Amino acid sequence: MMQHQNPIFIPGPTNTPDVLKAAMNISNFDHRAPDFADHYMPLLSDLKKVFKTETGQILLFSATGTGGWEGAISNTLCPSDKVLIARYGMFSQRWIDLCQRFGLDVEVVDCEWGTGAPIEEFGRRLCADTQGHIKAVLVTHNETATAVKSDVHGVRKVMDTANHEALLMVDAVSSLASMEFRMDDWGVDIAITGAQKGFMLNTGLAIVGVSPKAMQATKTATLPRCFFDFNDMANANAIGSYPYTPPVQLFNGLRASVSLLLNEGMNNVYARHHRIAEGVRASVVAWGLDLCAQTPDLYSDTVTAIMVPQEKDANLITQHAYKAYGVSFGGGLGQMAGKLFRIGHLGAMTDVMALSGIATAEMVMVDLGYNIKLGSGVAAAQQVYQKGYDD
Amino acid sequence: MMQHQNPIFIPGPTNTPDVLKAAMNISNFDHRAPDFADHYMPLLSDLKKVFKTETGQILLFSATGTGGWEGAISNTLCPSDKVLIARYGMFSQRWIDLCQRFGLDVEVVDCEWGTGAPIEEFGRRLCADTQGHIKAVLVTHNETATAVKSDVHGVRKVMDTANHEALLMVDAVSSLASMEFRMDDWGVDIAITGAQKGFMLNTGLAIVGVSPKAMQATKTATLPRCFFDFNDMANANAIGSYPYTPPVQLFNGLRASVSLLLNEGMNNVYARHHRIAEGVRASVVAWGLDLCAQTPDLYSDTVTAIMVPQEKDANLITQHAYKAYGVSFGGGLGQMAGKLFRIGHLGAMTDVMALSGIATAEMVMVDLGYNIKLGSGVAAAQQVYQKGYDD
Amino acid sequence: MMQHQNPIFIPGPTNTPDVLKAAMNISNFDHRAPDFADHYMPLLSDLKKVFKTETGQILLFSATGTGGWEGAISNTLCPSDKVLIARYGMFSQRWIDLCQRFGLDVEVVDCEWGTGAPIEEFGRRLCADTQGHIKAVLVTHNETATAVKSDVHGVRKVMDTANHEALLMVDAVSSLASMEFRMDDWGVDIAITGAQKGFMLNTGLAIVGVSPKAMQATKTATLPRCFFDFNDMANANAIGSYPYTPPVQLFNGLRASVSLLLNEGMNNVYARHHRIAEGVRASVVAWGLDLCAQTPDLYSDTVTAIMVPQEKDANLITQHAYKAYGVSFGGGLGQMAGKLFRIGHLGAMTDVMALSGIATAEMVMVDLGYNIKLGSGVAAAQQVYQKGYDD
Amino acid sequence: MMQHQNPIFIPGPTNTPDVLKAAMNISNFDHRAPDFADHYMPLLSDLKKVFKTETGQILLFSATGTGGWEGAISNTLCPSDKVLIARYGMFSQRWIDLCQRFGLDVEVVDCEWGTGAPIEEFGRRLCADTQGHIKAVLVTHNETATAVKSDVHGVRKVMDTANHEALLMVDAVSSLASMEFRMDDWGVDIAITGAQKGFMLNTGLAIVGVSPKAMQATKTATLPRCFFDFNDMANANAIGSYPYTPPVQLFNGLRASVSLLLNEGMNNVYARHHRIAEGVRASVVAWGLDLCAQTPDLYSDTVTAIMVPQEKDANLITQHAYKAYGVSFGGGLGQMAGKLFRIGHLGAMTDVMALSGIATAEMVMVDLGYNIKLGSGVAAAQQVYQKGYDD
Repeated sequence: MMQHQNPIFIPGPTNTPDVLKAAMNISNFDHRAPDFADHYMPLLSDLKKVFKTETGQILLFSATGTGGWEGAISNTLCPSDKVLIARYGMFSQRWIDLCQRFGLDVEVVDCEWGTGAPIEEFGRRLCADTQGHIKAVLVTHNETATAVKSDVHGVRKVMDTANHEALLMVDAVSSLASMEFRMDDWGVDIAITGAQKGFMLNTGLAIVGVSPKAMQATKTATLPRCFFDFNDMANANAIGSYPYTPPVQLFNGLRASVSLLLNEGMNNVYARHHRIAEGVRASVVAWGLDLCAQTPDLYSDTVTAIMVPQEKDANLITQHAYKAYGVSFGGGLGQMAGKLFRIGHLGAMTDVMALSGIATAEMVMVDLGYNIKLGSGVAAAQQVYQKGYDD
Repeated sequence: MMQHQNPIFIPGPTNTPDVLKAAMNISNFDHRAPDFADHYMPLLSDLKKVFKTETGQILLFSATGTGGWEGAISNTLCPSDKVLIARYGMFSQRWIDLCQRFGLDVEVVDCEWGTGAPIEEFGRRLCADTQGHIKAVLVTHNETATAVKSDVHGVRKVMDTANHEALLMVDAVSSLASMEFRMDDWGVDIAITGAQKGFMLNTGLAIVGVSPKAMQATKTATLPRCFFDFNDMANANAIGSYPYTPPVQLFNGLRASVSLLLNEGMNNVYARHHRIAEGVRASVVAWGLDLCAQTPDLYSDTVTAIMVPQEKDANLITQHAYKAYGVSFGGGLGQMAGKLFRIGHLGAMTDVMALSGIATAEMVMVDLGYNIKLGSGVAAAQQVYQKGYDD
Repeated sequence: MMQHQNPIFIPGPTNTPDVLKAAMNISNFDHRAPDFADHYMPLLSDLKKVFKTETGQILLFSATGTGGWEGAISNTLCPSDKVLIARYGMFSQRWIDLCQRFGLDVEVVDCEWGTGAPIEEFGRRLCADTQGHIKAVLVTHNETATAVKSDVHGVRKVMDTANHEALLMVDAVSSLASMEFRMDDWGVDIAITGAQKGFMLNTGLAIVGVSPKAMQATKTATLPRCFFDFNDMANANAIGSYPYTPPVQLFNGLRASVSLLLNEGMNNVYARHHRIAEGVRASVVAWGLDLCAQTPDLYSDTVTAIMVPQEKDANLITQHAYKAYGVSFGGGLGQMAGKLFRIGHLGAMTDVMALSGIATAEMVMVDLGYNIKLGSGVAAAQQVYQKGYDD
Repeated sequence: MMQHQNPIFIPGPTNTPDVLKAAMNISNFDHRAPDFADHYMPLLSDLKKVFKTETGQILLFSATGTGGWEGAISNTLCPSDKVLIARYGMFSQRWIDLCQRFGLDVEVVDCEWGTGAPIEEFGRRLCADTQGHIKAVLVTHNETATAVKSDVHGVRKVMDTANHEALLMVDAVSSLASMEFRMDDWGVDIAITGAQKGFMLNTGLAIVGVSPKAMQATKTATLPRCFFDFNDMANANAIGSYPYTPPVQLFNGLRASVSLLLNEGMNNVYARHHRIAEGVRASVVAWGLDLCAQTPDLYSDTVTAIMVPQEKDANLITQHAYKAYGVSFGGGLGQMAGKLFRIGHLGAMTDVMALSGIATAEMVMVDLGYNIKLGSGVAAAQQVYQKGYDD
């Protein structure tokens, strides 16, 4: 019971600052009132600063990131259209599955889990696609299941090299507002995230950035859509309105969240996430364990996936942590089930909170017979988190 | 500013009781924790009592009622399937539009706004459809735009008379948990509502009741869907799980809301809504105005749509009420724009709150030169609301 | 249950705006942290604008207004000191009782309930007190039990005429931040209020304005005190500190409340309360009932006390209102028990909310056999509240 | 900003569980409504289980623990009455000061800070007081400034041995509801605590247990009191009422808090606090530092006071912790200023939260040049907190 007071260490939903909980705890009001637009339109505008886009627009759907994936596809593509995507974790796999259900011709590049988007292979296939059959390239920016960050900018570069016209769609659910993301600079056409990750809110918003080129594609796209229709939303937004009943509590929370982020400064937000992640990774080294991510350039700053020794069952870690210490870690998903556990450290995380997660993981592993020295991971992280003193 | 303390009189979102606001104001937690199912499964079970179904199951999507409409269609039908539906207001119109966008063959029965589902005409067409081309009959139970209640049970009866196999799908967004609704008794295959109406919560849940027959239809339905996939949801629910990140705050709120409703007793909930609505309608009579709903059997107990004299612009009522008194009423939609205004009185409404809405409407109309006597509508409603005294 | 959603119509505690509830819903923090003073000191400073004092200082005690009464006495007086005070209602009576318990020589002027501070009589006694035995004159600004406002400025004038050195202490619990109050202009030495009235917060703060002269009196006062010691508090405040654990949630709420009041403008706050009160009083006239307050100059703008016909029991009104309609009115206190009931209308009250209280009172009285026409009081109030239309 | 999400490690106010924050976030209601007593009286009754008294009664004042100290004195004693009390820290000193301000004859036993109530010396003095001049023995159960627990039961025993009639009054502010406390078994006549410690609530309640003997003493006590009058409160309570405006939000919070405590079981609550404290103390040993408390029997389970090396300034620890890491520790008070810092670990604390405090203290001390090994204290605490695994 008291254990519910502990932070959660899952890669979303995240720990919500009190000020954002308060912002979401408002009464329903009339979304057709004349002053609704006075709050809504500046919010949409400020969100562009978080997405780092000036030419794109931001659409807010009452759904989750999965709904954002669906909207990205259904608004821009036609049945049987070819899309290029790599599978390197559970969430890229799920997007593939969604595309297949919508009748797309999904060209899957299978990669080892622990690696990221295969830039060179993408480049080769795009260059080979001289007829332009590939209508979209889909990239999972931060594969939450393996804690691997992909090089979205790199994908854009090979698309440009191939002079390819495909849309670039990015699942930025567990990266945006936590790790560097530059929609315009990276030439991203559709960027998708949710409220419950970097924005630190309750679940319930698919937040989608859409480039002018992607909006143009909606004119010819024939996949059916209605709830996630980009044009309904964009047209309503243009007059400060919304096509159906909006989740105003989440909008108000998002308003406060965006202000919090912009006040901290996006670069500071990224730096904080990087510092905390570095501390967690230092712990893993101290424990003598391996990350799932194969090389440092792939390390995610929002979640860390830690391989357990072959003879161990990682599921016992999440179970024991929850039962004995009241702490939630992420488990292994799909082919990684039992092989790794994950420490989420995005959103309203502090060094101090991270240390309690690391300390707990240590206790759990020692309880389970791992050959780990209590305090070792914490000490390694503390060295990263120390602030020094020169007042 | 202080005006925001006034109740809202729109037909949803509704006024939220403090206890439900508190229930939604909880921290994020791990939906993959072992005890998630302990809360989730009894909630799904208790919801069946509100829908009055024993054979059906309840699915909760992170979306709004519009998403529920979409899921109903996409999970059970194939492209070009024929559906039968009547247009008698903005919300039935929107569902028609959705069906058309999904490529269905929509057989529309156009009715005068102010009337409800044309039972006899439906019966004729269903009897004529000896080949069973019609795959679904769609009914908007409570047309929020005109405050008209349709006879869902009557539709079921003509379907049975015609011995027709079509699915019966009902938009119960602004009726369920406020007005009588009997999913099993009325043979409803899919019933759709949202969190922000009779359940008195924040916006963000499409709450869908699905009969075994409708679940069976998903096996052959070929319209694409993923986010709203009934089988993904039902399969996850069966093991106390959820197919994507669930909006746990709304679940917790729904838990509290269902308890509130069941404690009050569904029949008492209906009776309260009826009494409040009777008071509002008595006011309209006292004002010498007409309802949009043409006959008493069509009167909605959750919203009242009031026609203004021909020379008047009803939009001025909603604008002036908001600006001068800080009160939100509903406006006219579609062909009724400017011709009527609406008083919403569903959810956590009391007689006392309703009186303040009626009193405000009176002041607004007198301000705008209507020939109405101050206090007249209030007095008429008071006569309905009086409790007598025999302690 | 739903009835708890109704506004309350007691003369405090009052209805709390959502924004103030949110401001009080913060986590505990360290009141000895270096930045505590950054929030606390500007709050104390801004409170002076509400009290309308520049030379005085504001002290915040973790208590209620009753604690403020006690602190006023114990910090400035010695055992057996003479104080002059009139008894014209339950709250002036209670202050008298407190003074007596502290061993003061209490010179009570008994007045009819329904009248206010007897300015002329006070003047006579002060002039006669050539030896300066009277150390303090105590005035209940707004006698909540009878809804009578006294002329504090008038008391000051007769004190000045008598050239009397006594301290002027004012119970402004149910007037300050709602009705005009000018600490400096009126020469008030100690002004006392609480958080749960005009400041619209939870109960738990005695908010006390203290003049330099009153602070000087603490040097020679020998009544024992510690928890309410003005010097402990003032000395701590001077360095941005607090002498014991402060109720930081109420401080944060008070911060928001003061901002709300100052943004609305104190004169607008007073005008709003006056307008609402005028409407309530118009209702009473329409009902053919009498106010307890004997003349218009005595009418309170925060509460209205309504005499019932002699053959009636006013307690039945409050009981029936609560039981049948879920509405709280104030009852008669002391010698007025059963003879009057009270409608509180201070704090976050709107015209619209007031109308629901008036409408309820009407129904209650008709239920109880009063000869009152439904809608009559509402109509009278509506005429006061109408805003007209000239957009 | 994000740092405000960290737990606080001060010995009160404490970290408040979400469920208690929600319980305190309710709207004002009418405390004179007929059903107020239905909530209030069972609360008072259940509080007796936390105080472990059957014969005593619990009084709730809108104040802090300091107000409880004052009420204990002013309700039971006369001017110049002799009281026996030992000074061994800042909070016992403050109670002494209060007694002196109220004109009592305070017989102070000065003890070294770091020790507790001097049982034997008390025994000697009580035996010597054959005339019964000592009217009350005052004991600070848990001296928060030095983290020393005194043996209240031992004091009772020497009182009994001396066959002394004095009242036994106990400041249990930072012990009750966290550390074992047995009002009846230990023969405590007045026990005082506040809402913001073991009850985990906002500041604003003095919670006082009063024995029949202490209530009897009020009959002859002549010190002035009104706000804290025990008889006013007890008489009101007897009929489910309250003598002035009650802080109903705190009452509702207390209701939830008492349920939380009783559900956990008081012995489990004590055991949890003991385990957490043992972990913190193990850290101190690992750091090579000393506790202020001189012997293990004196160790407090709610707060730990840690001496810093002579050449160090402990104030830098609290300052640097707050500034660099956003963590609040307690500083040294009075003669201990600069010589020690304190880690509070009472209320809604978990092992996991405690580890983050320990880890932070380590970083802070290393930053400040202490000869301490990062991770060493954490490891020592982890060994205490480990749960083992035998599922």
